[in-house]
Amino acid sequence: MKPLKTLPAVALIALPSLAAAQDAAPGVDASTDTIFIFNSLLFLIGGFLVFWMAAGFAMLEAGLVRGKNVTMQLIKNISLFSLAAIFYYLIGYNLMYPLGTWMTEGVVSGIWGPGVLEVVGVDRDGADDYGYAATASDFFFQLMFCATTASIVSGTLAERIKLWPFLIFVIVLTAVIYPLQASWKWGGGFLDEMGFLDFAGSTVVHSVGGWAALTGAIILGPRLGKFKDGKVNPMPGSNLALATLGTFILWLGWFGFNGGSQLAMGTVGDVTDVSRIFANTNTAAAGGAIAALILTQLMYGKPDLTMVLNGALAGLVSITAEPLTPSLGMATIIGAIGGVIVVFTVPMLDKMKIDDVVGAIPVHLFAGIWGTIAVVLTNGDASLMVQLYAIAVVGIFVAVVSAVVWFILKVTMGIRVSEEAELDGLDVAELGMEAYPEFSKG
Amino acid sequence: MKPLKTLPAVALIALPSLAAAQDAAPGVDASTDTIFIFNSLLFLIGGFLVFWMAAGFAMLEAGLVRGKNVTMQLIKNISLFSLAAIFYYLIGYNLMYPLGTWMTEGVVSGIWGPGVLEVVGVDRDGADDYGYAATASDFFFQLMFCATTASIVSGTLAERIKLWPFLIFVIVLTAVIYPLQASWKWGGGFLDEMGFLDFAGSTVVHSVGGWAALTGAIILGPRLGKFKDGKVNPMPGSNLALATLGTFILWLGWFGFNGGSQLAMGTVGDVTDVSRIFANTNTAAAGGAIAALILTQLMYGKPDLTMVLNGALAGLVSITAEPLTPSLGMATIIGAIGGVIVVFTVPMLDKMKIDDVVGAIPVHLFAGIWGTIAVVLTNGDASLMVQLYAIAVVGIFVAVVSAVVWFILKVTMGIRVSEEAELDGLDVAELGMEAYPEFSKG
Amino acid sequence: MKPLKTLPAVALIALPSLAAAQDAAPGVDASTDTIFIFNSLLFLIGGFLVFWMAAGFAMLEAGLVRGKNVTMQLIKNISLFSLAAIFYYLIGYNLMYPLGTWMTEGVVSGIWGPGVLEVVGVDRDGADDYGYAATASDFFFQLMFCATTASIVSGTLAERIKLWPFLIFVIVLTAVIYPLQASWKWGGGFLDEMGFLDFAGSTVVHSVGGWAALTGAIILGPRLGKFKDGKVNPMPGSNLALATLGTFILWLGWFGFNGGSQLAMGTVGDVTDVSRIFANTNTAAAGGAIAALILTQLMYGKPDLTMVLNGALAGLVSITAEPLTPSLGMATIIGAIGGVIVVFTVPMLDKMKIDDVVGAIPVHLFAGIWGTIAVVLTNGDASLMVQLYAIAVVGIFVAVVSAVVWFILKVTMGIRVSEEAELDGLDVAELGMEAYPEFSKG
Repeated sequence: MKPLKTLPAVALIALPSLAAAQDAAPGVDASTDTIFIFNSLLFLIGGFLVFWMAAGFAMLEAGLVRGKNVTMQLIKNISLFSLAAIFYYLIGYNLMYPLGTWMTEGVVSGIWGPGVLEVVGVDRDGADDYGYAATASDFFFQLMFCATTASIVSGTLAERIKLWPFLIFVIVLTAVIYPLQASWKWGGGFLDEMGFLDFAGSTVVHSVGGWAALTGAIILGPRLGKFKDGKVNPMPGSNLALATLGTFILWLGWFGFNGGSQLAMGTVGDVTDVSRIFANTNTAAAGGAIAALILTQLMYGKPDLTMVLNGALAGLVSITAEPLTPSLGMATIIGAIGGVIVVFTVPMLDKMKIDDVVGAIPVHLFAGIWGTIAVVLTNGDASLMVQLYAIAVVGIFVAVVSAVVWFILKVTMGIRVSEEAELDGLDVAELGMEAYPEFSKG
Repeated sequence: MKPLKTLPAVALIALPSLAAAQDAAPGVDASTDTIFIFNSLLFLIGGFLVFWMAAGFAMLEAGLVRGKNVTMQLIKNISLFSLAAIFYYLIGYNLMYPLGTWMTEGVVSGIWGPGVLEVVGVDRDGADDYGYAATASDFFFQLMFCATTASIVSGTLAERIKLWPFLIFVIVLTAVIYPLQASWKWGGGFLDEMGFLDFAGSTVVHSVGGWAALTGAIILGPRLGKFKDGKVNPMPGSNLALATLGTFILWLGWFGFNGGSQLAMGTVGDVTDVSRIFANTNTAAAGGAIAALILTQLMYGKPDLTMVLNGALAGLVSITAEPLTPSLGMATIIGAIGGVIVVFTVPMLDKMKIDDVVGAIPVHLFAGIWGTIAVVLTNGDASLMVQLYAIAVVGIFVAVVSAVVWFILKVTMGIRVSEEAELDGLDVAELGMEAYPEFSKG
Repeated sequence: MKPLKTLPAVALIALPSLAAAQDAAPGVDASTDTIFIFNSLLFLIGGFLVFWMAAGFAMLEAGLVRGKNVTMQLIKNISLFSLAAIFYYLIGYNLMYPLGTWMTEGVVSGIWGPGVLEVVGVDRDGADDYGYAATASDFFFQLMFCATTASIVSGTLAERIKLWPFLIFVIVLTAVIYPLQASWKWGGGFLDEMGFLDFAGSTVVHSVGGWAALTGAIILGPRLGKFKDGKVNPMPGSNLALATLGTFILWLGWFGFNGGSQLAMGTVGDVTDVSRIFANTNTAAAGGAIAALILTQLMYGKPDLTMVLNGALAGLVSITAEPLTPSLGMATIIGAIGGVIVVFTVPMLDKMKIDDVVGAIPVHLFAGIWGTIAVVLTNGDASLMVQLYAIAVVGIFVAVVSAVVWFILKVTMGIRVSEEAELDGLDVAELGMEAYPEFSKG
């Protein structure tokens, strides 16, 4: 046993009952009510932390686009989260979990009736899932994962996509694409039955967002002037302080993302596992940041802040498929490899003339694939073949459906702003509102 | 029962005691100590989330004022929170709850003695409210509501009010106005006895801030040049990224604001209700944001980010009077109507030549009234007449007392900066310190 | 008993079991499992709040440096946190707690083996510290304190120190200096045995960071042009909105810093103490802010936002050594004195030609010393002599070791950028990346 911070004398005095209880009964379970409350509380805390990630994406992306497109990026982020909240509720949640419920109760009952929420003032006999957790706490938590998937897409496609087609894509993504594939694993579907392991969603959340972003980026094309005469034209972000803030917000939210995915906190084993996950999640991010810091110093002679930020995020994505079983050292290394992946794949995308404004594809797709594979390194129950199969199945499904949706949107309403609007900036051209109207442009 | 995310195998292994306990005893209460701890913990988590709203208001307002007034807006926000903390403690908390305690113990004992806090290392026999929650946890939580009321006022009156008269108003508001009217409902006063329902404060907090802001705006007058030759002169905010950040912060904090107002988390029923509240609060914000997004697109041909932000906030205010009883669908609609109210009443205030810099009156007062009325739609215990009566009583009280205070301040020390200071900006004129000294003005 | 917000009717209905349990058994302990979960949960919540302080320091410092050095300050902050996470794990944590464990298990087992984390799916018999808390939750919490120490240093030395020597210093600080001296108190070492009281680290964390910063500032020297012809040349921060955001973040995180340092939440006494600490921490910050507000108004005729921000932070540092025993009034006064100290010592450092860019030495070192001494005012167990002795011992140790490390770095690789780089700004000169590339400089 490692000693902790010395307990203040007063705390020791206040704790006689603990000592007494231990003497009398060396191990006493939490009561069933208490377990229910702890589990629900984990979902609520986890849920608000993952909600906070929506702000993180908004700040990260607002910081990495150019000043003339910041208002648009902000309106996209708050709107996509809001649409995800509504459509995951209306359709997605019911689609993700057994269709039976959905078919029999119907969407209308979902809107006007109690829907997914237990009745007010329920007692334990009336709780849908007594002994486990409040349904609404689970819904709240799951919703945030769905919204995260949509947040990933907005960054890649920034600075050139029209608002409304983007938002329609978000509706399809959060109402149908995300929930359907998530049901394969988290709804107890075929990937789950095959033994596919994805603890908190390196594949189910992050690579899904990444695939949707990648197909969008290919179909939408790069920004004007990004790739010219065989050269990559850097278009630096307008506010790196915001981008750094966004990264710290995401890092904080990720404790809820991974820790909450333990899905239970009412036993010694569960809360200890949640604690392991917090520690591993943190160290993986640190590993990713430091790997990117050192690597950009070595490769370019100067460390690159945006790579360090994306390195930390890639570390987080990498550990998301299995944040529980690794040791701290292994988690650091898994995260560090995520950071390395980012440093090498950002320029690779540029070479392929795929324009990913914020680096979301390297961070969420490539590191997500790596994290899903890395499960086999630390979890004896994992099968490399199954992991690869699930990566491929989910990837093909999301890429194909996303491509179809993007094409339909392109043909019907168009997805790209006019050249003039793109050059003037979306804020003035599309919204008539600048984010920083007083700061003259250099 | 809806299945949740599949429990990882390891979690199932770690949970045998749960199954065993359920078999043995299908329902076991949490112990009295455990209930006490859960309730206190709800106040602590709720409290720190509502504290965070102070930062949200600061960022929202700093983003929506012009660059030359940002430092002043920041100093107002951190100072008003600090004064609220001190004066709610010295006077407000004792005024809000039975006067008896206050009269007998006296303010001096409050300052120097243990005051509202239980003694260090208290045991259950010494806890003021054993079986319920730690007094300090309640105090901490309640304090944040009082401070929120003051935060609402600062945005409306920005860019022209002097610092010190504003801060004196804050002292009166947080020491007397807010606590007195809050005692009518939450101190068990006459509005509570009449059956007035206001779960987390659409009226008790938000409309109170709104009324104080409205009277202040009328007495203070609009900014120079805002209404000229019958035209409304737009004065765009200087930093919409900050404003969006502030909105996300407020949204996050609102989970504590509404969820914590369940005031208990130690039973299956309570934690399930808290979970409902989290889900409803989130969807109401989403509804408000999307309503404003669509409506501004339809009305002006371009979506308006500041309306979307205020729409989300209005959705939050709207659901605050009753975040528990609505279904998810109904909560979305209640929030959406809040968003609609904002889009229509912002220009209405302009027509009335009332200058509300950040839109706080539509968001907190108008949506607050709507939310208080909306209680009758979903809560069978609510009486429309009682709700309207309470809205009127609180409104008249706050408006009259605020007007008196504003007038006294105007006559004695003046509340408005000089024309020159207003044109130069309060930062240079009043503080000698610019928020963004290096960014040249466009 | 003070009444709380009126419980909603529905909550009362849902609570019969509470009343019943109370009737039957006026006091029932939480079960041993439940206590373990509550304690671990306190560490997790406290830990993520203290993590958030890393973002607070980053924003505060990015806001207080000039625009040309913002990217560098951001990369320093995210890198120092990441290095602290890795090196506290690899070396520091093992050094801070009994060396025996470290010697026998070895660093290598720490990296590759389960290290500080309990095995996955542990049951109560396997928990290292059953009856108390999960080891990983403690590790996660302790790590954040170590990282905080490093964050303090980066602000003081901004705008002129090279990246890599600074990061090497961070490694030494977090791997060796912080853990060694922390073991004297929190590892049960000689200061603890003497009766030294430092609840959450006014000395162990804040003054340690302050001493390291002070020695660094002296050895590094002031920024070019800061002290010229006997005059102090003000170099205003580039973004006071960010600095204010950073302060609010730190304030929020401090609830975890001080509240989590109760180290236990599983009894009525512990959760009541945690609640007291939250309330006291908040009011001390408020006291510090208001003291600085009033004092700068009186001394300079204009309130100073940066002093108000640092006043709030100094209030927080001041209450950190003993956030539990003071009454609310006393906590406010202790914090206010911290604010006063800042207002007087910031110009004092200038007179001594010690260049502390963000005011970290007054906030963390001077207020930290004050807070450590103030313990004797409210805690009967404290001895002034012991407190002073501990302040001196820790100060001498940290100052001497830091000075040696800074000198070695100065001689071997140099710690200061070239004059040209300093004048051009570190962002362009050292990183080739501006934080706000589009905002032209005024």
